[in-house]
Amino acid sequence: MTRIALLGTGLIGRFYAQSLHGRRSRDRIHVVYSRSRERADAFADEFGIPHATDNWHAAIQREDVDAVVIGLPNHLHLEVVLAAAAAGKAVLCTKPLGMNANEALEMLHAVEKAGVYHAYLEDLVYTPKTLKALQSVRAGAIGDVLWVRSREAHPGPHSDWFWNKQLSGGGAIIDLGCHCIEIARNFIGKEVRPVEVMCWADTQFHPVDVEDHAIGLVRYENGAIGQFETSWIFRGGMDLRDEVGGTEGTIWLNHWLRTGMEMFSSSTQAGYIAEKAETDTGWLFPVGNEGAALGYDDMFADVLTQMEHGGTPREDFYDGYVVNAIIDAAYQSVKSRQWSTVELPLWRGHTGEQKAEKSRSFDDEHDLIKREMMPDGATKLILRNKQSGELSQRIVAK
Amino acid sequence: MTRIALLGTGLIGRFYAQSLHGRRSRDRIHVVYSRSRERADAFADEFGIPHATDNWHAAIQREDVDAVVIGLPNHLHLEVVLAAAAAGKAVLCTKPLGMNANEALEMLHAVEKAGVYHAYLEDLVYTPKTLKALQSVRAGAIGDVLWVRSREAHPGPHSDWFWNKQLSGGGAIIDLGCHCIEIARNFIGKEVRPVEVMCWADTQFHPVDVEDHAIGLVRYENGAIGQFETSWIFRGGMDLRDEVGGTEGTIWLNHWLRTGMEMFSSSTQAGYIAEKAETDTGWLFPVGNEGAALGYDDMFADVLTQMEHGGTPREDFYDGYVVNAIIDAAYQSVKSRQWSTVELPLWRGHTGEQKAEKSRSFDDEHDLIKREMMPDGATKLILRNKQSGELSQRIVAK
Amino acid sequence: MTRIALLGTGLIGRFYAQSLHGRRSRDRIHVVYSRSRERADAFADEFGIPHATDNWHAAIQREDVDAVVIGLPNHLHLEVVLAAAAAGKAVLCTKPLGMNANEALEMLHAVEKAGVYHAYLEDLVYTPKTLKALQSVRAGAIGDVLWVRSREAHPGPHSDWFWNKQLSGGGAIIDLGCHCIEIARNFIGKEVRPVEVMCWADTQFHPVDVEDHAIGLVRYENGAIGQFETSWIFRGGMDLRDEVGGTEGTIWLNHWLRTGMEMFSSSTQAGYIAEKAETDTGWLFPVGNEGAALGYDDMFADVLTQMEHGGTPREDFYDGYVVNAIIDAAYQSVKSRQWSTVELPLWRGHTGEQKAEKSRSFDDEHDLIKREMMPDGATKLILRNKQSGELSQRIVAK
Amino acid sequence: MTRIALLGTGLIGRFYAQSLHGRRSRDRIHVVYSRSRERADAFADEFGIPHATDNWHAAIQREDVDAVVIGLPNHLHLEVVLAAAAAGKAVLCTKPLGMNANEALEMLHAVEKAGVYHAYLEDLVYTPKTLKALQSVRAGAIGDVLWVRSREAHPGPHSDWFWNKQLSGGGAIIDLGCHCIEIARNFIGKEVRPVEVMCWADTQFHPVDVEDHAIGLVRYENGAIGQFETSWIFRGGMDLRDEVGGTEGTIWLNHWLRTGMEMFSSSTQAGYIAEKAETDTGWLFPVGNEGAALGYDDMFADVLTQMEHGGTPREDFYDGYVVNAIIDAAYQSVKSRQWSTVELPLWRGHTGEQKAEKSRSFDDEHDLIKREMMPDGATKLILRNKQSGELSQRIVAK
Repeated sequence: MTRIALLGTGLIGRFYAQSLHGRRSRDRIHVVYSRSRERADAFADEFGIPHATDNWHAAIQREDVDAVVIGLPNHLHLEVVLAAAAAGKAVLCTKPLGMNANEALEMLHAVEKAGVYHAYLEDLVYTPKTLKALQSVRAGAIGDVLWVRSREAHPGPHSDWFWNKQLSGGGAIIDLGCHCIEIARNFIGKEVRPVEVMCWADTQFHPVDVEDHAIGLVRYENGAIGQFETSWIFRGGMDLRDEVGGTEGTIWLNHWLRTGMEMFSSSTQAGYIAEKAETDTGWLFPVGNEGAALGYDDMFADVLTQMEHGGTPREDFYDGYVVNAIIDAAYQSVKSRQWSTVELPLWRGHTGEQKAEKSRSFDDEHDLIKREMMPDGATKLILRNKQSGELSQRIVAK
Repeated sequence: MTRIALLGTGLIGRFYAQSLHGRRSRDRIHVVYSRSRERADAFADEFGIPHATDNWHAAIQREDVDAVVIGLPNHLHLEVVLAAAAAGKAVLCTKPLGMNANEALEMLHAVEKAGVYHAYLEDLVYTPKTLKALQSVRAGAIGDVLWVRSREAHPGPHSDWFWNKQLSGGGAIIDLGCHCIEIARNFIGKEVRPVEVMCWADTQFHPVDVEDHAIGLVRYENGAIGQFETSWIFRGGMDLRDEVGGTEGTIWLNHWLRTGMEMFSSSTQAGYIAEKAETDTGWLFPVGNEGAALGYDDMFADVLTQMEHGGTPREDFYDGYVVNAIIDAAYQSVKSRQWSTVELPLWRGHTGEQKAEKSRSFDDEHDLIKREMMPDGATKLILRNKQSGELSQRIVAK
Repeated sequence: MTRIALLGTGLIGRFYAQSLHGRRSRDRIHVVYSRSRERADAFADEFGIPHATDNWHAAIQREDVDAVVIGLPNHLHLEVVLAAAAAGKAVLCTKPLGMNANEALEMLHAVEKAGVYHAYLEDLVYTPKTLKALQSVRAGAIGDVLWVRSREAHPGPHSDWFWNKQLSGGGAIIDLGCHCIEIARNFIGKEVRPVEVMCWADTQFHPVDVEDHAIGLVRYENGAIGQFETSWIFRGGMDLRDEVGGTEGTIWLNHWLRTGMEMFSSSTQAGYIAEKAETDTGWLFPVGNEGAALGYDDMFADVLTQMEHGGTPREDFYDGYVVNAIIDAAYQSVKSRQWSTVELPLWRGHTGEQKAEKSRSFDDEHDLIKREMMPDGATKLILRNKQSGELSQRIVAK
Repeated sequence: MTRIALLGTGLIGRFYAQSLHGRRSRDRIHVVYSRSRERADAFADEFGIPHATDNWHAAIQREDVDAVVIGLPNHLHLEVVLAAAAAGKAVLCTKPLGMNANEALEMLHAVEKAGVYHAYLEDLVYTPKTLKALQSVRAGAIGDVLWVRSREAHPGPHSDWFWNKQLSGGGAIIDLGCHCIEIARNFIGKEVRPVEVMCWADTQFHPVDVEDHAIGLVRYENGAIGQFETSWIFRGGMDLRDEVGGTEGTIWLNHWLRTGMEMFSSSTQAGYIAEKAETDTGWLFPVGNEGAALGYDDMFADVLTQMEHGGTPREDFYDGYVVNAIIDAAYQSVKSRQWSTVELPLWRGHTGEQKAEKSRSFDDEHDLIKREMMPDGATKLILRNKQSGELSQRIVAK
């Protein structure tokens, strides 16, 4: 059993607590911190947590605590991580790891120097669908991954600090893009180096200073593209979708708005439909188990099991640092209006990855470009002469 | 922590073991029984179970066992339940409870007389979508439930005994209909008495003696209809869908084939897609976490938590007995070719439930039958004179 | 070019006129009749029809009219058809043909005796999806058809006469069941004799005398089942779905609520979303082209082309009569509470159709019952000994 | 009736002929041209066209021809358009209009100078779903349009010339991007000036010289973004989807792979499933009426009706020229690796469009940033002080 100090009682804190104490778990939160003592007490009460505090230093220092789970606003991560590492505790930090790559790298150095266990709580790479899809990709079901589109969009975050650049480090890119970037990186392969980023961002709608809409392309060394789409303007709930394109197949994941549960209600029922739902009448699309669908259950199972066994979780501070570096390049590209290099002073993956080989020999003289069945039932081949490069087509009898 | 004896190592045994030992569970299977000692040993090995046996009596008698989980063919349930009750163990039995209502009633009496905890392992009423939908129905989101269609269809079960009436008690109705019937009963309300059943069944395709396709209607005392559709001939995977119609809304649940995960694969990948999937190339519809989607995780959480706290699980042997009584009436109706009464010598719910009141007053003189927006934007009302019963329509300006 | 007399200016009249005059059509409505001269004039104005009248006899008698399209309430069909046949005009009658099979048979005899062209305007067998699906079924894509579920459900019809048994002949069964029955009959094969019907019906919700919800099973001579589900209580719009189950495959058609167009709107926009849509904010599911999706375009193309060429349309009065006979049996079954025979004094299809042969030989000794891939990647066979009938299972290595 | 000369008998020629002669159309193709006389004869035979030729000059010069429909490879458009304009015929040209904006502008000048009717055959803005969606957008259903994603992806085109830059002018961008760009432009508003483009393109898979995958962002003067995604590598059929994001709502269109028709087939049936379908067993997603779904029917209805009435079609050569200018900027951006200006020497729309106003006053002191319902049922507001810009949040009781 792991005795946990939970720092933060916002929406993320609730999801963490539900997952950690969920169903028949062995793990327990031992102390919970909130800036407001009142909220800390109420939270402890609700989740059966023995201790509550408004002093995070004290929570970290407790001898009866093994691990610190950080669910605090972005601007506090660095200070708290350094303190937890100094206290010799395992550190589990929510996304994004830092306000920027410099902060993230400082945290990575701190936990590695202290020799403490560290995990980057990127829940969305742990959704049941993502885990299954990653397994299929590894098994070769869609061939080589060439393109990933990861989209997270909703009408805007639920707490004031997200909208404040001093506290968050940015807008939709740092809030949501961190998820999308790491999802794409998992599908493309974490060993493949992200090279450069082209990003558009704008404040299209909300009366704020940070971007509320951004779209970016991350080019990897092997030619694959990770496309992130983040928005705080989307209307209709929360749009959480991924598309993965490979040489041999395609994967489409819809985590939230179309998962096989559909309800029409003409009566104003009591209550809550789903995170970021916008209405409670008409056609509604609830999610059966929100915490599970968002990956929290599988994330904590992995993170705590690896911690017990001395292993490495699926995502650790190194991954958080790479994500921050890509985000830095995205913001740089928004300013420079051109592709911007991803600066990775520390890189532990491969270098010099080549594009996948493209030649597909059809016969001694030709490469096959394409094969298609036509409306009349015949099959049409597009060929390219290996020597001359000349293109031709050929009809194959039904 | 609950020390469990698991009886049976078939597909259902695997799902049970995965769920019981899943993620960070406190619960452990202590001994596993299979008819084949070899299979028992292999299973124990795979799931880290300390003891294995081919003697179920011995497994039940162990002092270090608290609860017996029965995942055996239908014809063994009665004998094993009686033995477990006699041994003073909690008994958790898979579906259907008995081969018929007589067997089920005998089991119910046995566990109640012995005073042991009993749970009916009807996993499909515990799927995340079903739990959320039931919660919405209770909150009034769709008004009064008038109709439930629950469908379970696939190309046929995976073990030989299912196809053998002596061992199973029947075909698709007893195998799959037990799920559909209890799902409908949960939506309509367990306190509402099932009155009669009309059922069609046939052996349309497979060279067997039991029915491989059946459709039935269960009429409840309040006028609601539970429609079950069961097939062992369905092509395309496993079709697990529910539809709930109420006076104020509609719920559609798709648990398996369209849950937001879609994959096209042109390469023959290594391995398993989903329970009852029929192909491994082309468009595929995997399920992220099969055990969770089928309700096993939430089922065992409820069953074991209630057991610890002296409570009652969502489904117990009484429910299993009611389901068996409805199935008996269904088989009776297939023979008699008319509506057949549900015989319930023991009934603990309400009696004399009335149909929901239908009158909807529009003004002093009229009831409102319907309101609809027309293509030209106007609203049309259909009215009925309260005294004369005369119908009329009225256009309301846009 | 066909000069048409359109009788009726209700919702069906509008759909007919839009389709007949649609896009670049050669066909024109020459005169339109409505009980109300005012409505007839307005309709003629809207659709550019040269003549309008409130005298249907006069419309039929016009020398410059080739064909009479009947879009009137059910109780008028018989009289108008007889008059049109007597006038030597082609007769195109909306669904259902008669209030019952007797009326329908009288109409069939009248048009055949008069030697006039006749078409039964069953639009829903002409939807683009249904036509394509029928083509696939004929090509063998799903093997032998064993079961068809056809469902039409919405919150109730838009005109008062539908709710009045004297004018309509019944409730949801005669209004909507006629579609579902004929859709199933097309998939199963029109040459296969419908033998008997089991039907449940009730007035569950509306303050009326006719049934507002009904579910029935039609058994065909070859063992196939046509299942119709009709409701005037459905909430959420119009539910138009078909499912076809065959020995080798499955077809699912959704004609209305989930066709690939989804809209979320938080602003109350001006106007009309789709036939029987219930809301104009929240998640909405419009249909691109309603008339085309409901089959009107392809129906009139077939009906008028066949008329020009002296051919037979996909659906004629004989089909309307068979449908009425099945509906009569359904109402009879509701009363008798048992299976009711379909009375067909006139039958032009096959007789003595046998069930499809079920034996599937695996080797000299065994029939194959089933083949399934298991979670561990192995394939499991269920076999039956041809002599003894004994069942067994066999694991085939991956 | 319009007498048409059809130039070209490829896939596009077939779709055009089916649509022009479709159902009960008044319009007829009078002469058909193909490079191969044999193909021209066979095509004329199939579609009942009175004349066939392998001389396009002769086809254009015929006195009995009113309009020339150009369905030829891109490199021939300019020459043929100039000849048709000189012959005084109406000119209807397939997409893209030119190989580049210079060619397109030359064609525009030619038809305007000759005073002949001209239409740009951009079928995908005429799909039933797109027309309905545009109507909803115009009615204000989703507020101001901020973002459009239009995606067209399949495994590559069916004729050799598409893959040859000399004949086509480029790869996936010019082949598919022309559709996506114009779809977005229709949603954003054709009067809004496209300002600049950022585009990534690569030859990721096929052994060819042109790009087989490209993603671009087009920024409009009012701040809206049109995102085009084009691929010749997509696996699974043809992916034709649009997403439109507005300040008040969202629209999702799926034109091809998920339109409410789903089929599982285990038998290799005879024949054709859908354009660019990749398999004929397993789960298949046919389209009911392909020509209608791709917009051909509504396109020709508009184009020919406007021609008769002296009106302007939805898309004419001016639109084709704007699309070519955006494509030119996209190719320029791929080279320059930065945003590239759209060069529009001729611009007939608005200039100086401002971004939509963003302030949303909540009370005298605050702007409202966001309102959200939380899991506990409470509503949370995010506010911004109008003077200080300070952010705060406020919980509103349930």
